[in-house]
Amino acid sequence: ARSMCLYRWYYSNLCQRTLSFTIFLILFLAFIETPSSLTRTADVRYRSLPWEPPCGLMEGVELLCLLVFVADVSVKGYLVGWSQFQRNLWLLAYLTVLVVSLVDWTVSLSLLCQEPLRMRRLLRPFFLLQNSSMMKKTLKCIRSSLPDMASVGLLLAIHLCLFTTFGMLLFTVGEKDMEPNRERLAYFRSLPEALTSLLVLLTTANNPDVMIPAYSKNRAYAIFFVVFTMIGSLFLMNLLTAIIYNQFRGYLMKSLQTSLFRRRLGTRAAYEVLSSRLGQAGATPEAVGVKPQNFLQVLQKVQMTNSHKQAIMEKVHSYNDTLLSADEFQKVFDELDKSVIKEHPLKPQYQSPFLQTAQFLFSHYYFDYLGNIIALGNLVSICVFLVQDADVLPRNRDDFVLGILDCIFILYYVLELLLKVFALGPWGYLSYPSNVCDGLLTSILLVLEISTLAVYGFPHPRWKPETLGLLSLWDMTRLVNMLIVFRFLRIIPNMKPMAMVVSTVLGLVQNLRAFGGILVVVYYVFAIVGISLFRGTIVAPFGNSSLAPANGSASCGSFEQLEYWANNFDDFAAALVTLWNVMVVNNWQVILDAYERYVGPWSKIYFVLWWLVSSVIWVNLFLALLLENFLHRWDPQNHEQPPAGSVE
Amino acid sequence: ARSMCLYRWYYSNLCQRTLSFTIFLILFLAFIETPSSLTRTADVRYRSLPWEPPCGLMEGVELLCLLVFVADVSVKGYLVGWSQFQRNLWLLAYLTVLVVSLVDWTVSLSLLCQEPLRMRRLLRPFFLLQNSSMMKKTLKCIRSSLPDMASVGLLLAIHLCLFTTFGMLLFTVGEKDMEPNRERLAYFRSLPEALTSLLVLLTTANNPDVMIPAYSKNRAYAIFFVVFTMIGSLFLMNLLTAIIYNQFRGYLMKSLQTSLFRRRLGTRAAYEVLSSRLGQAGATPEAVGVKPQNFLQVLQKVQMTNSHKQAIMEKVHSYNDTLLSADEFQKVFDELDKSVIKEHPLKPQYQSPFLQTAQFLFSHYYFDYLGNIIALGNLVSICVFLVQDADVLPRNRDDFVLGILDCIFILYYVLELLLKVFALGPWGYLSYPSNVCDGLLTSILLVLEISTLAVYGFPHPRWKPETLGLLSLWDMTRLVNMLIVFRFLRIIPNMKPMAMVVSTVLGLVQNLRAFGGILVVVYYVFAIVGISLFRGTIVAPFGNSSLAPANGSASCGSFEQLEYWANNFDDFAAALVTLWNVMVVNNWQVILDAYERYVGPWSKIYFVLWWLVSSVIWVNLFLALLLENFLHRWDPQNHEQPPAGSVE
Repeated sequence: ARSMCLYRWYYSNLCQRTLSFTIFLILFLAFIETPSSLTRTADVRYRSLPWEPPCGLMEGVELLCLLVFVADVSVKGYLVGWSQFQRNLWLLAYLTVLVVSLVDWTVSLSLLCQEPLRMRRLLRPFFLLQNSSMMKKTLKCIRSSLPDMASVGLLLAIHLCLFTTFGMLLFTVGEKDMEPNRERLAYFRSLPEALTSLLVLLTTANNPDVMIPAYSKNRAYAIFFVVFTMIGSLFLMNLLTAIIYNQFRGYLMKSLQTSLFRRRLGTRAAYEVLSSRLGQAGATPEAVGVKPQNFLQVLQKVQMTNSHKQAIMEKVHSYNDTLLSADEFQKVFDELDKSVIKEHPLKPQYQSPFLQTAQFLFSHYYFDYLGNIIALGNLVSICVFLVQDADVLPRNRDDFVLGILDCIFILYYVLELLLKVFALGPWGYLSYPSNVCDGLLTSILLVLEISTLAVYGFPHPRWKPETLGLLSLWDMTRLVNMLIVFRFLRIIPNMKPMAMVVSTVLGLVQNLRAFGGILVVVYYVFAIVGISLFRGTIVAPFGNSSLAPANGSASCGSFEQLEYWANNFDDFAAALVTLWNVMVVNNWQVILDAYERYVGPWSKIYFVLWWLVSSVIWVNLFLALLLENFLHRWDPQNHEQPPAGSVE
Repeated sequence: ARSMCLYRWYYSNLCQRTLSFTIFLILFLAFIETPSSLTRTADVRYRSLPWEPPCGLMEGVELLCLLVFVADVSVKGYLVGWSQFQRNLWLLAYLTVLVVSLVDWTVSLSLLCQEPLRMRRLLRPFFLLQNSSMMKKTLKCIRSSLPDMASVGLLLAIHLCLFTTFGMLLFTVGEKDMEPNRERLAYFRSLPEALTSLLVLLTTANNPDVMIPAYSKNRAYAIFFVVFTMIGSLFLMNLLTAIIYNQFRGYLMKSLQTSLFRRRLGTRAAYEVLSSRLGQAGATPEAVGVKPQNFLQVLQKVQMTNSHKQAIMEKVHSYNDTLLSADEFQKVFDELDKSVIKEHPLKPQYQSPFLQTAQFLFSHYYFDYLGNIIALGNLVSICVFLVQDADVLPRNRDDFVLGILDCIFILYYVLELLLKVFALGPWGYLSYPSNVCDGLLTSILLVLEISTLAVYGFPHPRWKPETLGLLSLWDMTRLVNMLIVFRFLRIIPNMKPMAMVVSTVLGLVQNLRAFGGILVVVYYVFAIVGISLFRGTIVAPFGNSSLAPANGSASCGSFEQLEYWANNFDDFAAALVTLWNVMVVNNWQVILDAYERYVGPWSKIYFVLWWLVSSVIWVNLFLALLLENFLHRWDPQNHEQPPAGSVE
């Protein structure tokens, strides 16, 4: 019973949220720790010296987090029992990671935070991984599709090597002394260079450029590049998608089945427990079953959503006092799968016929449409002024008309809010999520507008709110005004074909957690590795303050000319953005080339690895998830079941 | 009976091939017709004046083709009958297209080929489309998925507009007189410009560049771009893939079913005809069935592959003389689905034990391995010399050792060829496709090597074959030598996981015809439209001969600096390559920008349309086909059925 108590307490909301927060905290530390991201820009030319936390502060927070994890692992260990613990690889790894982290922490503190390498940072994402069963499943799924992916990878490698040697030969032949082949000099000078060129072409990031010198010389050379891109990028890369999707589909389906099976087993066990109690009292073999009263008693203590509990209780009441058989008992729990339609509170009752008419008018959906049209007008007015002001110097812009218009629109929004509250009653108003969103925006707008008026006075010709800090209050008003556009998104579900798409997207977002988690883990690990490898290698050019002169010497398309200075690994936030840019793949050859020059040719390995993990594997995985969800929802056969990804 | 004869004749191989060739010919005309592609390069700086065919030559060929189509449509019309003809939209359209083409042709000839617009060129791809039932089906499938795609397109448009206005506001606020926001000046100057920037970002083609000015100023701006890319490129674009895949899957499945159903109906009808004949003779209702003899007689006249006919006849013989029931009759035709294992001719029998041993040795598969190893050695030697010669001026390269090595390798290949022919017999040798390929390569190599030796003499130190024309014989030898690498591809099916992937790919290639056809149609139409819109608009810069000076003035990343001169629409072949480059999407903003400057802002519409059709729709369609084929083949359930795409 004590372990039951502990179990309940451990899986209570409070405990789980504390754990999640701790994980978030320890991951978040990376932004503040020594290569601190607390500067305004990551650009090496303009970057100020960041604030460095004193030694011990971050370490203190970290120790607290680690202690929470120690408590977590001990509770988990106690709950599953020692023999299970030994067999559970994840728990063992958890323990190991904790021990290593604590040892590393001690070393770090004893060296006064001057240690060159922090092992424990690399290990931190493990805590996130370990806490989500869905992420573990996805990882397992990825691992099981690795052999197939390796075979396509091998095909890709063969394809690359073949075309590299063929290309090198092709651009070497027919070379004369006077005119060395420009294509060879630019992209096929040596074997590694040619390989890089074609690898980048595989991602299409240097597409027309790589073929320009040869193609300018002779049309026929284009065939080489087109065939290469077709086979590599169109065929083999998509084959990879197919393989991942195939594995993924089967795997998630199976995990859904086991999850359903487990629940059935659980309810069956509950049934056995509840019915055996009756068996002791009555002992007639025919009357085996669960008494609804007992069931209801147990139900009171179970943690579940109120609406679900209500539905189950109603279902049980409908059996009034006859014993529940095993089948009926199972059926009762099917209620859990049904989503509950939320009921809105009743509208307030008004006596006067005038008020009743007003209520009818303002609660009608045409009133919503009117609001949308007004919001559209607001948006159009903003756009018109944007276009008009585009070529005007900031000093000469006249905000008078816009100021007046904004006042009017905000007045309308406030009026709409009040009328709706009047028509639906305060609670009725808040029971629609869309109204909550509108109301929130309106209140923010109102507060901002009032403070704008208070600070700058009422709009008059040549009225020009001045800037205070980064954004003036007036600018804030306009930005928030823009957010009113989100009202339009409410129209979408009213259109039939859109509704399906949107509901799929919304359903997807729920199932996205595991994938987001894996992305976070991958980004975190690579960012930390990148920081320890490349920190401080990109140095600001001479002539720090002005741009043009430093630029003139750099050749077109180079890191320096494109001013990619902010794409470095000097702190965590900058590393994340750099990794994102490489993941998006476009122009990654620029970063590849820059790091080859600044650091060394081995840096390519890091970037290619990151490309493989993020762009090839993760993006395909994401596509697979999307396909899976979408097809599942659109499949007319299994319309009843919950979507595949929602298993936890 | 006459129409039956005509039917047979029309669907005979000869007739169908003539038709296919005519279609190919009329499509191919575009390369030679007035903006002729018969120049060495498409680069406007170096392009010589192309050969223009005299008026009447191409038109004569075209008339011949059109007459063939007239014959085709009249035969088809006769076969389906007039009432069917009226209801068949495809045939009516065919007739219309032919009439329009002929009228246009007359106009063209009467104007002495100087007419400004040639309608009929645009209509030509219709002939290709009309001739393939699979392509029609695919088109229908695309049309049925258009509504769903439109809804995602609408979402995309909303997404774009929202972020455009939001971005414009964001980069306008907080602007001061002295420092106008650099991001706004570069990418968000006006509404159309901002829209283009974000549309290009949707394809990730300007990824890091577009965020650099803002990101250099403040880290937080990166969030705007990352969120935009995530929603647009990762979410909505992949949703489009899912929608197309979903439609496609269902549609192809259905077409497979109807196709199977039709075949069953056909065999059933054949059964009824054959069995009724017997009914007249015997008239016993129990003994309804087909006599194997009758069946075999009919079978003799049917056109089908010999191996299939053999298999069916064997099956029928196994029923020796009992009447075939309807079920058995159907089952006989299942043989058609089974692929037949080709038998190799017997090896020649030698008497002497020495010869027998030799035969055993050289027909053993270890001998193949040895050949592969030698070929690998050949490849390695080529690579070594490539790397070694990379930095040497062409004049100083010494080809002596390589010449010797090549001689040796070619000798070995010839020897291998002879030994294999000896071991397997000439027909046995040719029955393996891989051997045919090897033999062909070896013969080409042998001829080339002999002529090289004849021209340049035997290799000696400082031996240096001189260039004759574009490629010297010696270079040809080396290139063909490279092709020997394809031998290695034979190893792949020996590896288990690779075999699966490769077999899928090979199966896919068979089903790719319809997709390739649609791609050809789309490319053709857009290329012709592009030629009539943009021909001659890109003009060579001053200082035609030298490069560097013309370049210096152009800003980095512009069409002129990147020397994209060859990406124009001045002739058909150049237009195809330009369209390909836009389809691959990378750096397409450069071409977009150049045509906006040279032609006008409306040119954007053309390119965006092409991007939508090719990159968005076609590439997704291709991915859908690939997924469909792959999943079908890997699905353990329907392992017996033919893959979905193989229906004709």
